[in-house]
Amino acid sequence: MSGVNISVSPQQVSPQAARESRLQRPLRIAIFGFGTVGSSVARILVESAPRGLELTHVFNRGVERKRVDWVPSSVTWSEDADAVLGSDCDVVVELAGGLDPAGGWVRQALDAGKSVVTANKKLIAFHGVELEQLAASRGGHLKYGAAVAGGIPVIPGLEQGLAGDRIERIEGILNGTCNFILSQMEDGAEYAAKLAEAQRLGYAETDPTEDVGGFDARAKLSILMRLALRVAVNPEEIIPRPITTITAVDFSYARDLGCTIRQVSRADQSQGRVAATVGPMLVALRSPLAWSRGTENMVVVSGHYAGDVVFSGHGAGGHPTAVAVVSDLLALAHGSRRVELPALPATVSGEFEVPHYIRFLVRDRPGIVAAITGALAEEKINIRAIVQKPGYPSDALPFVVTVEPCKSSALKRALEKVKTLDCMIEEPLDLQMLE
Amino acid sequence: MSGVNISVSPQQVSPQAARESRLQRPLRIAIFGFGTVGSSVARILVESAPRGLELTHVFNRGVERKRVDWVPSSVTWSEDADAVLGSDCDVVVELAGGLDPAGGWVRQALDAGKSVVTANKKLIAFHGVELEQLAASRGGHLKYGAAVAGGIPVIPGLEQGLAGDRIERIEGILNGTCNFILSQMEDGAEYAAKLAEAQRLGYAETDPTEDVGGFDARAKLSILMRLALRVAVNPEEIIPRPITTITAVDFSYARDLGCTIRQVSRADQSQGRVAATVGPMLVALRSPLAWSRGTENMVVVSGHYAGDVVFSGHGAGGHPTAVAVVSDLLALAHGSRRVELPALPATVSGEFEVPHYIRFLVRDRPGIVAAITGALAEEKINIRAIVQKPGYPSDALPFVVTVEPCKSSALKRALEKVKTLDCMIEEPLDLQMLE
Repeated sequence: MSGVNISVSPQQVSPQAARESRLQRPLRIAIFGFGTVGSSVARILVESAPRGLELTHVFNRGVERKRVDWVPSSVTWSEDADAVLGSDCDVVVELAGGLDPAGGWVRQALDAGKSVVTANKKLIAFHGVELEQLAASRGGHLKYGAAVAGGIPVIPGLEQGLAGDRIERIEGILNGTCNFILSQMEDGAEYAAKLAEAQRLGYAETDPTEDVGGFDARAKLSILMRLALRVAVNPEEIIPRPITTITAVDFSYARDLGCTIRQVSRADQSQGRVAATVGPMLVALRSPLAWSRGTENMVVVSGHYAGDVVFSGHGAGGHPTAVAVVSDLLALAHGSRRVELPALPATVSGEFEVPHYIRFLVRDRPGIVAAITGALAEEKINIRAIVQKPGYPSDALPFVVTVEPCKSSALKRALEKVKTLDCMIEEPLDLQMLE
Repeated sequence: MSGVNISVSPQQVSPQAARESRLQRPLRIAIFGFGTVGSSVARILVESAPRGLELTHVFNRGVERKRVDWVPSSVTWSEDADAVLGSDCDVVVELAGGLDPAGGWVRQALDAGKSVVTANKKLIAFHGVELEQLAASRGGHLKYGAAVAGGIPVIPGLEQGLAGDRIERIEGILNGTCNFILSQMEDGAEYAAKLAEAQRLGYAETDPTEDVGGFDARAKLSILMRLALRVAVNPEEIIPRPITTITAVDFSYARDLGCTIRQVSRADQSQGRVAATVGPMLVALRSPLAWSRGTENMVVVSGHYAGDVVFSGHGAGGHPTAVAVVSDLLALAHGSRRVELPALPATVSGEFEVPHYIRFLVRDRPGIVAAITGALAEEKINIRAIVQKPGYPSDALPFVVTVEPCKSSALKRALEKVKTLDCMIEEPLDLQMLE
């Protein structure tokens, strides 16, 4: 009988008993990173004491200054990552963020057969596929419901609730900082003032590039593309555009067009072609994307069968993100498994065929409109409207041209010509209009 | 060794191999009920051919008239329920609806160790707890993501994504028929005209009581209460109020108050008390519930930690409901398990403390307002506003009183007195105002 394991076959254990035994030995949880989210996770674990979960370790650099008295004394506080990774914890909750050293800890944990729950969008966007393979090969699980849109269950919604559909399009407001700034600008304020306010309130970093430049959102978009469109893309192929060029003038013109401006992350897939981009766009005031105000997030998923599904709520902050983390932990404790549908590698284009809003800022002189319309006509782009609101000085005159759906590349060529006109005070601003 | 089973212990099978073998033998699926949803489920299974799922049986009364040519010839069409239940199918997809005979089929399937996926809100609302216990005791699974809000992944969102929160309140638009009628009435039409239109379009039954009376919505609400508030309630304890009493006049007054009217299903839990109700209510035009138009559904879940999360989309119709069914099937095929949090039995009160809109229809005479305000004052209910729009005849004069938050029971006592006044042409209509 050597080499053959003797055991009671699983069929003889009643499922109820199996479930009970799974829950009787709680999952031992090590939190890596005791910042806002980490302490919220601990707070929920301590306050709600969900059955099947036990906080056993907290790792942080200089952990002594992090220590709090409301955590049970049984918890080990440590600044030795290897010691915690080498402990008997079952799950590492990685909340340090960034690729390094967080990525190393995650690999080490998965390699040891532990499971990992993370809110690290960058790590999952760039290395998610490889890390999932590592988890599967070692018998652990990798869950990252908190990596996109924090407290909004978009990832479980996609994996568990929309797996039966064929998703064709995603449009999302995935960055709370940008949404705060832009939705606040609706009242006439300029970008710089609202950025400063966001920084004062702790919604924006001192260097806001990651958020306002669209880099944070594109990492999240690439994760959603893998789960919803089932394509594995290199996030760096998605070219983001910053919201820094948006002015109060643009909000004023947008309103006249029945729109407002939001940072939108969008991707679609049709006939095997995948397009994705992140940047400020005009959205209709009546559309769901315009509902989202302040630091809220929103995702609109369009399925071939189920049509549009909207998810909205608080996408960031300690508590909402912690809910996603604890929910992932509960799913692990209850033996829930991801519905893993294959994601095929794909290249991403930035080519969309949509209407555009183009705002020019010029020193007024005769012939400007003729030059612009001429350049657009050469690319066979049809003009929808030319709008010039009164009250602006003629030596810094903003006016707007909207065009019928055209390819991004054709519009780019037309604007390359226009921007060299000597009357242009700054480069024309072109924004996709979502309809 | 007799009595001891010899088997390779699960630890010796690599998780990848286990996952592969789980998917290599597809789940054999029997659809019970080949109506709109049943044929949409078959359509997705045939068109998308999701790995791990195989349609093997279709049961329907008089099945010959249901037969379609786009289903593979390998599928068995049958009108013999027992034969299909006794077959080697793994999962019964129950789409017949109602308690009987559907409940019997579901019990029979679970009893035989099969899994069941159902869209049957009534069965799950009244017998879900017992059926889940039966499933667990026999080794099968019961999934019902399609039972509430069809294509919107509210159930997986709650189970998988918000399990880590403590949900305190649910507000939902759970009945597409009512939402169609009420959102269409915003333009000034009367109830009867819009009900007729809904019937013509196939959105309402010939006898619309189940929908317009709130019975359909309360079944769904009681399911959401179990999953979100974690209380097991008898649906019949939730007292629904019909939308049939709403008139164009009410929409006109509501608009003046910055509101519209929707059929809302709401439940909350605080300090161990559970309150729930279904009926027409005033909702602020700026609130998510007002966004929902046509047959759309929406659920707003308010968590202690994550705040408000909104889910919205198509709550009914063949394709959206079928997406939920196929997603549940995929979850079964991938070995995903429900996050089963205990739901404790609870009694439901209809007592809320909210502001109210009260519309009277009277033959005008002196002293009416004095009588009404007197009756309200006796119950210590504070008046917020009295509104009487011009242009109505004095022998059938509608006017509105809004009151500050008060207990439903106190308002009921006050209105009991008022309604006996001989000037009242009909019973006063009181609606909760959601703020």
